Amino acid sequence: MGAGDDGREIVISVDAMGGDKGPAAVVAGLGLFMKDRADARILLHGDTATLTPLVAALPVKDRITIIHADDVVQMTDKPAHIVRTGKATSMWSALDSVRDGAAAACISCGNTGALMALSTMRLRRAVGVKRPAIACMWPSLNPSGFNILLDAGADLKADAPDLLNYAFMGASYARNGLNLEGPRVGLLNVGTEEHKGRAELREAHELLLQAQGAGGFTYVGFVEGGDIPSDKVDVIVTDGFTGNVALKTGEGTARLVGKMLRDMFGTNILSKLAAILAYGALKKFRHQMDPRRVNGGVFLGLNGTVVKSHGSSDATSFAAAISQAYDLARMGFTERVAARLATSASFTQGLEQSDDSADPADA
Amino acid sequence: MGAGDDGREIVISVDAMGGDKGPAAVVAGLGLFMKDRADARILLHGDTATLTPLVAALPVKDRITIIHADDVVQMTDKPAHIVRTGKATSMWSALDSVRDGAAAACISCGNTGALMALSTMRLRRAVGVKRPAIACMWPSLNPSGFNILLDAGADLKADAPDLLNYAFMGASYARNGLNLEGPRVGLLNVGTEEHKGRAELREAHELLLQAQGAGGFTYVGFVEGGDIPSDKVDVIVTDGFTGNVALKTGEGTARLVGKMLRDMFGTNILSKLAAILAYGALKKFRHQMDPRRVNGGVFLGLNGTVVKSHGSSDATSFAAAISQAYDLARMGFTERVAARLATSASFTQGLEQSDDSADPADA
Repeated sequence: MGAGDDGREIVISVDAMGGDKGPAAVVAGLGLFMKDRADARILLHGDTATLTPLVAALPVKDRITIIHADDVVQMTDKPAHIVRTGKATSMWSALDSVRDGAAAACISCGNTGALMALSTMRLRRAVGVKRPAIACMWPSLNPSGFNILLDAGADLKADAPDLLNYAFMGASYARNGLNLEGPRVGLLNVGTEEHKGRAELREAHELLLQAQGAGGFTYVGFVEGGDIPSDKVDVIVTDGFTGNVALKTGEGTARLVGKMLRDMFGTNILSKLAAILAYGALKKFRHQMDPRRVNGGVFLGLNGTVVKSHGSSDATSFAAAISQAYDLARMGFTERVAARLATSASFTQGLEQSDDSADPADA
Repeated sequence: MGAGDDGREIVISVDAMGGDKGPAAVVAGLGLFMKDRADARILLHGDTATLTPLVAALPVKDRITIIHADDVVQMTDKPAHIVRTGKATSMWSALDSVRDGAAAACISCGNTGALMALSTMRLRRAVGVKRPAIACMWPSLNPSGFNILLDAGADLKADAPDLLNYAFMGASYARNGLNLEGPRVGLLNVGTEEHKGRAELREAHELLLQAQGAGGFTYVGFVEGGDIPSDKVDVIVTDGFTGNVALKTGEGTARLVGKMLRDMFGTNILSKLAAILAYGALKKFRHQMDPRRVNGGVFLGLNGTVVKSHGSSDATSFAAAISQAYDLARMGFTERVAARLATSASFTQGLEQSDDSADPADA
């Protein structure tokens, strides 16, 4: 689908503040992103005095509207504190543009916990969702080059109905974000045998077997940590504690290997020469493993699309993340997920909720 | 410490059956391991008819005693089934050599779940231990090249007193297995802030702050998945579900990177030439990342040392794993851990046990 073919305008709400590299990196990323997307318009939330000169320097400045916000969410702010006192922040303001229908998606590189708490408060959970989730792309051996893992850390826990919802939401994301017709969904466990794992996993296993048709995915059963980057599965479902540990362990392992590789190519004159000869291939390799390409966790299970860009995003990685927000907005992703989630609920009706469930009053 | 300097004999009990590659790989591994260790003697458990010709071909055959066992634990056998019916298996027999005091350590490349269940049943838990753990070595940026992670999958859950015990046992293993005087212990969590994570983690955090002196380690606080291969910490403590997922995710990521590297060097004539030039450095790199070097999970918290070698162990990796068993046996590792665990108990006396605790009647 070519951008702008249908004459529609796609409006994205951007929190310009709160990233480690400041608003200059965000605005530079906007410039990269917008130059090939004539139908994109931006609502840019933050300090007007800071943003005005940055935006004025961009060729696409006419498609950017600055909306002033006095305050900024800091990386050290506790989510609960921001929910109580953050009304004047650029993050709050950016989310309210989606809440009010002025924008189709919101993006921020600020504090993840605060963004999830504010998103849940301002946009509300989608019908049937108790725990929203963060979905992230993971480099893999599949043709698209990526798998999707969720929850990557929105909530510490997930019971069986939550995991079922994650499967529905993750499969929707795979269809819309990776163009996969019938994505394969796996449930992360410590073994692939049916009798293994915690009670909520065995219960979720049964739910997924029944619900796969309605969810428009194929359930491949339990998968293990080693399958996350494999081509056996497209969507990996787990609770936010396990997902977050897995994500960071994968990143840490890739960093370790990268360091060993650099050491390797620096060993002696022959290996240095080899590094020069392999320059093109090495560049491609680095590109494949570049965490900036997979930048952007997508919040699922809310009445609106929210993308979290990495706190240390530079212009390139911010452009990648906002492209994701734009693609999902163009596809009417929020509405598509909501339609699927409505089906998911029918599989868990009458099912007992676990004792440790979050307060569902807000759902 | 040179092998055999003190004239002592180190007896290791070996389960010859049950690995994917069969007893030939185990016996070949024994040959590699024993040739430089004149003080090592082996009790080799399995089918006499199969083992006799294999052993007869080894120069070290005089130091190997075959002990016949009719039966073999299969990879597909459920642990509970083996505990009830596995008396005639080579695994059971190998463990009983340690139980009876005939050997100082036991090693097997069979079914992990069955080995843990049988080890717990035959050797019993050490005093004060409710949940034994599997500790594994993880390639890292530390000078030794390794960090220790536990529990890598013995039990799905761990409460605060379990995590405290893991810290004591892991620190002992770091002192004895990595020669670290005062190892640094970290608790795996989804953030490093004190208020983050599950209740049992915050409780364990407090216990570790108090107990670090008595445990002979430095507690560095919460660590994240990305820190597992780092030089910020030597021992990473977590529950068996999370540890198993992290371990397999790390292995999967390393495999993905390895595949991408191979593809990279095969891209074109220049990169192929580069691969030839970098041959020595690449070989060193492969050696560093070779999972066979870190083969061997050690079971901690039992009255005896048990090493689990990988199911697909070849001769090289089996030799590496049995060397670990030998080193720990020489050091009197079981007794040293037991002495530490006795101190650990004093920190959790009067502490409430969580509702989901395992049956401690067997402790």
